[in-house]
Amino acid sequence: MSAYPAKQHLARTAANLGAAAGVIYLRGGETLVHPDSDTEYDFHQDSNFFYLSGVREPGFAAAYDIGSGTAILFAPHVSADEAVWVGAPPSLDELRATYGFDQAHYAHDAAAVLAALRPATVFTLPHHRVDALADVLRAAAHDAERLLPAVHEARVFKDDAEIEIMRRANRISADAHVALMREIRAGASEAAVRGRFVGLVLAAGCSYEAYGSIAAGGRNAAVLHYTKNNQPLAAADLVLVDAGGSLDGYASDITRTWPVGPAFTPECRAIYQIVLDMQRAVLAACAPHRQWRDMHLLANRVAAEGLLRLGILRGDVDQIMDHHVVACFMPHGIGHLIGIDTHDVGGYPPGAARSDKPGLRYLRASREMLPRMAFTVEPGLYFVDAILADAKSDPALARFIDFDVVAAYRSVGGVRIEDNIVITESGHDNLTVCPKEIADLEAIRAAAYQ
Amino acid sequence: MSAYPAKQHLARTAANLGAAAGVIYLRGGETLVHPDSDTEYDFHQDSNFFYLSGVREPGFAAAYDIGSGTAILFAPHVSADEAVWVGAPPSLDELRATYGFDQAHYAHDAAAVLAALRPATVFTLPHHRVDALADVLRAAAHDAERLLPAVHEARVFKDDAEIEIMRRANRISADAHVALMREIRAGASEAAVRGRFVGLVLAAGCSYEAYGSIAAGGRNAAVLHYTKNNQPLAAADLVLVDAGGSLDGYASDITRTWPVGPAFTPECRAIYQIVLDMQRAVLAACAPHRQWRDMHLLANRVAAEGLLRLGILRGDVDQIMDHHVVACFMPHGIGHLIGIDTHDVGGYPPGAARSDKPGLRYLRASREMLPRMAFTVEPGLYFVDAILADAKSDPALARFIDFDVVAAYRSVGGVRIEDNIVITESGHDNLTVCPKEIADLEAIRAAAYQ
Repeated sequence: MSAYPAKQHLARTAANLGAAAGVIYLRGGETLVHPDSDTEYDFHQDSNFFYLSGVREPGFAAAYDIGSGTAILFAPHVSADEAVWVGAPPSLDELRATYGFDQAHYAHDAAAVLAALRPATVFTLPHHRVDALADVLRAAAHDAERLLPAVHEARVFKDDAEIEIMRRANRISADAHVALMREIRAGASEAAVRGRFVGLVLAAGCSYEAYGSIAAGGRNAAVLHYTKNNQPLAAADLVLVDAGGSLDGYASDITRTWPVGPAFTPECRAIYQIVLDMQRAVLAACAPHRQWRDMHLLANRVAAEGLLRLGILRGDVDQIMDHHVVACFMPHGIGHLIGIDTHDVGGYPPGAARSDKPGLRYLRASREMLPRMAFTVEPGLYFVDAILADAKSDPALARFIDFDVVAAYRSVGGVRIEDNIVITESGHDNLTVCPKEIADLEAIRAAAYQ
Repeated sequence: MSAYPAKQHLARTAANLGAAAGVIYLRGGETLVHPDSDTEYDFHQDSNFFYLSGVREPGFAAAYDIGSGTAILFAPHVSADEAVWVGAPPSLDELRATYGFDQAHYAHDAAAVLAALRPATVFTLPHHRVDALADVLRAAAHDAERLLPAVHEARVFKDDAEIEIMRRANRISADAHVALMREIRAGASEAAVRGRFVGLVLAAGCSYEAYGSIAAGGRNAAVLHYTKNNQPLAAADLVLVDAGGSLDGYASDITRTWPVGPAFTPECRAIYQIVLDMQRAVLAACAPHRQWRDMHLLANRVAAEGLLRLGILRGDVDQIMDHHVVACFMPHGIGHLIGIDTHDVGGYPPGAARSDKPGLRYLRASREMLPRMAFTVEPGLYFVDAILADAKSDPALARFIDFDVVAAYRSVGGVRIEDNIVITESGHDNLTVCPKEIADLEAIRAAAYQ
């Protein structure tokens, strides 16, 4: 594997910063320990630090001298006593080469190394402690504001190395989704679904789940942030699996929904087909210079048309759109930026305002799509009792909804289909190669029972 | 499943506290989020709070009125908006019944509820924030010292409900170890070993790994805290798997070491047999009123005798013991208390001093074994280059070690065998039912290649 392009990321961030001189200084994450215990949390590197260093181990720091373009890595010193327990550490020169930096020093020398650079300004992140730099900061201006938006905006545009990692993360996670479709039978627990997924992605080299997986059978899929994952699956139900591995620092975020039994029931099939139509329409529209917010509205329109056909909605499609009726069935946004973080940074660049309209309120990005941006495309339809009860008591919404027809579909619970894409010069590249057509899913599910 | 005996734990802790009146107040853990991100860490409940409440969800608090024996639960309030995303919450009365408390209130009412009790003293844990109780604490004495040792000492003695959870955690984890023995072949990655283990224990209902699993092939087993878990396994090597699931709040901690190929090499077999002899000797000696420290010394003596037989050590066994020579091969302690935490609390009760002698220095408990204490018994022998180089340059140690013979065993890497036991009135109960005899392991491993 070629080195992570940390130095290019430092240069790009410095360019966004718009400063001709000064030093960027960042601290990496430290190991977190449970309170009153020596049990460690799984280490998760600070995302901005990872982007600018490529380091996924605790205790590091990094600096970048903007004027000379010098990238400096600071590594924790491992004592001989510690080395007995954790193994012999790499040398500073090995670390420098591994991470593609110009210099490497021990972290306890960071203040001295930075002082020698005599920076006029030191740029840091607002959430990073800088007590170790007190002496340096007495002789320099300290800017803890401008670096964060500069690194966020750099992270929005993925380079080839990042896209390839994300493609591999998607490949591993999609393969695990297919394994579930092939193996799981009615009666299995949601915990078995999630456990099998996690086991497969870890075995394939992922560090951890990119986020808390959702494995929700039947009505549980109507709990949007379902985390219990402990109920048995019934043959007449769908199961919604929202799960992705984090590979080499990058998230994948894939949802598939499929019948627990060998085939879709008519109600499940009808809702599933609308969600598939929503995703197809949005994917076909994903291209440079389109607005992400319009993708949300497009999905809503396709949903409105589908729900009108089923008789769940009634009335005029434009009025349904004007009244945000589809938000009763898809309360979340159409998708979000993805990268090092599952919900990646930069969705609302400085100045972009969040809508307060239903549905749009929860849209995690609102900007023009441009090449090298990575998004999830995740339309869904859900039958959430609390939302529908509210709608029933609101005449402005209730007149568009036939609650008797809704009742016939309530057991569907919820459907979501989620892929990860990268915007290209001409359209988009779908990183998620994983079955989602009804015929393909039913063929796999029927085989699971043979 | 019967309710967790939180109220008994509160009563036992209050008895240890030795106060006739006053109120115990504890806060549960909150969700942790990665910096500059909305990704959550897997939630891990504060261990002392779990012991005294049985609650494994974030945002709770609890109190106990010592004089009246009233157990009071404080639950986070879930708004209607939040309920759309997380599902309808249980009522206060349902929570009270689920957790076996006398009263349940919302957390935002905690100060008022406690003030109404007019406590003379409020007992809290030193690491728990109490800002919400400012008004209560103005009218009461605040003791943040005595509660911690009282709850630690209560946790040392497991009741039947706890032992049964730990037995189930061990059953699930042991089954996963056996699955690895049956399935893994040479060429597989250590990541595949760890991934398969985690997948199986999650699927069986565990919440997470009790600690960072170790899957170490060959020489990697000589890195005592090996966490990379990313190398391929070679047929001539052993693989050391130290992994346990956390089930319903309780850890299991099991190590098995077995040949990657179908059988042990002569060198691996010889070292393995000594470690097995060490464990057998210690298990036979585990009984009430024996000293845990003596178990460590017993394991060292059996190791000394075994290493003398192989010619790795030379000289007199008593002198070898006096000079702590075995610590060069088993630098860690023979085991530790286990319970809610993998390295559970109470190993050194107030007043017990830690030895500074090699090996004993790292012993995580030093007290008299008593019924209902749970320990790991985990002898091991390792060929750690750094330790052996130090020994070679220390005449007091070097005269006991034949480094030419050591060289012949270096490729063994390391062997550890670890079970979880509970001290009973007459001896001990081994919770870990998992193959460890050489013949049994070779039968399973040979079958893996058929």
